Amino acid sequence: MGDLGEQGILEAILPLLDSAQASLGPGDDAGALRVSGNEVLVSVDTLVENQDFRLLWPSGLEHNAYDIGWKSIAQNVSDINAMGGRATGAVISLSLPKSTSLEWVRDFSRGVAEAIAELGARELTILGGDLGKSQEISVTTTVLGECEHGKVLRSGVRAGDRIAVAGRVGAAGAGLSVLEHEHDNESWSRAVRRLVQAQCRPVPPLESGPRAAEAGATAMMDLSDGLIRDAGRMAKASHVNLELESSALQDFALRLEAASELTGTDPMSWVLYGGEDFGLLAAFPQGLEIPGEFNVIGVAKPANGRRAVVKVDGKVAKPETGFDHFA
Amino acid sequence: MGDLGEQGILEAILPLLDSAQASLGPGDDAGALRVSGNEVLVSVDTLVENQDFRLLWPSGLEHNAYDIGWKSIAQNVSDINAMGGRATGAVISLSLPKSTSLEWVRDFSRGVAEAIAELGARELTILGGDLGKSQEISVTTTVLGECEHGKVLRSGVRAGDRIAVAGRVGAAGAGLSVLEHEHDNESWSRAVRRLVQAQCRPVPPLESGPRAAEAGATAMMDLSDGLIRDAGRMAKASHVNLELESSALQDFALRLEAASELTGTDPMSWVLYGGEDFGLLAAFPQGLEIPGEFNVIGVAKPANGRRAVVKVDGKVAKPETGFDHFA
Repeated sequence: MGDLGEQGILEAILPLLDSAQASLGPGDDAGALRVSGNEVLVSVDTLVENQDFRLLWPSGLEHNAYDIGWKSIAQNVSDINAMGGRATGAVISLSLPKSTSLEWVRDFSRGVAEAIAELGARELTILGGDLGKSQEISVTTTVLGECEHGKVLRSGVRAGDRIAVAGRVGAAGAGLSVLEHEHDNESWSRAVRRLVQAQCRPVPPLESGPRAAEAGATAMMDLSDGLIRDAGRMAKASHVNLELESSALQDFALRLEAASELTGTDPMSWVLYGGEDFGLLAAFPQGLEIPGEFNVIGVAKPANGRRAVVKVDGKVAKPETGFDHFA
Repeated sequence: MGDLGEQGILEAILPLLDSAQASLGPGDDAGALRVSGNEVLVSVDTLVENQDFRLLWPSGLEHNAYDIGWKSIAQNVSDINAMGGRATGAVISLSLPKSTSLEWVRDFSRGVAEAIAELGARELTILGGDLGKSQEISVTTTVLGECEHGKVLRSGVRAGDRIAVAGRVGAAGAGLSVLEHEHDNESWSRAVRRLVQAQCRPVPPLESGPRAAEAGATAMMDLSDGLIRDAGRMAKASHVNLELESSALQDFALRLEAASELTGTDPMSWVLYGGEDFGLLAAFPQGLEIPGEFNVIGVAKPANGRRAVVKVDGKVAKPETGFDHFA
């Protein structure tokens, strides 16, 4: 199955599943269901030990349960945010090895509760869950949400739209490289620790999703798998090319210098290919006032030929190192 | 953590999670969230390899992906059914070892689609999912639903109510014993195969939940962890004793004879302690007409003393062999 990639697998199975009754079926940040006139958004994500986190990183840092709880909330509310909505409810399924301590579960729960509070997901409440045994830690969180201003899909970009991002770009990727680097975590500078924190406790810009929807964004998605890979999905869904300017991305790269010095990595590679910042990628029509926290990084152009692409400084960019579980 | 049991773990973590805004928080078959005047029910369950199924059973039977897809739907729509509701939407998160074949994923998806059709969950549509890598197969399904007649909790039993069940009782447990028995599956009789099928492809009685709600059931839950264990939960939540008659359970035991002969097990032990049939346990006030597919198996009495209990033929019954992941 490794040869197919996640996209290939999905293309094989989605035709088998009937989503005709959905208000919005699979393929965007969240699905949607109509409930007595209103739409309910639904998103699900799973974190698995040694795939999405390590209990002990090569750097010597131990990944604590609090951060896993935090991230399980952050990445799902981000999906609702990316539709322009607000998260209203969540259920969590926790599969744990029998050796897991009760203290671990308590820390996890604190991470869940504090992420909800500190990220500002004020309407989000825990509706239930499931607890079971497994060989490896696995956390699946499903979040429900609602849109006040109508949902914003990734497929709505029009040629001429300005492409902008809100939130961090590359910080979580830089943090991941530091964690994977065999360099004693005791000696990290404060700047390096902040990047590690961006990986372990990401902060999706929760006000920015509804604000962009209200401002009139034509398309939006969250940055979970790397800018180039995610922009490629938006380009494909919208049938436009997204033309980005590296000069507009330099500011993001500058903030990653501390990790670059430590690991010897070009910081721009994190900006282009690093995932899990859970910032927003959005498109706004020309002439529209873009909310202040969004930085314009490019423009949409008509896609010539069969395939919509992402370009950086005029050259086609491919998601060589973006994240795909099955690549 | 093994010493605490699932209940102990939940009691430790639930106070950390704020469910105050929920229309119904954790603790029943499903949680509920209010959406523009209507309630949305939410339920989540996870199936993990070697915990909830084996790819190869001691009997030599291979557990196919189709059945795993079927069961992931069946056990979740059962939770919605047990609230008196109908399932409307689902998201599925699939974690798979890299060696899993695409054919496996296709079979799984067919099982999902056909369970939805054959169980009669006509309003249920797949809204999305997540696909990731893991060492063991893990499937988490979240189902949303709605109640036409108001939700039926497990906490509503009143002294004097008749206790009744709909659907099979003990069949899936008998099937599990056969699967775990080192007896060549090639020689199984048709009656034995039907019991194995009850374990691998359970059929929750989806019309009976809404019908019981409409008829005026005071309480309801699904039978997932064994009659005595689940009845104990209903007794505790409702602060009443549930007094069951073994004579009313004999018919269920008779249907398990073929598995009893093969494994040498008393069939009544499956009726009392076997899980995963996903039938319904419900309470109906005296004098009310009970829907025909429900069989009365006992009556609720005031709980004397501090602790509500389940009795069979007047003796307190404990869920010695009911299923608890962490017991």
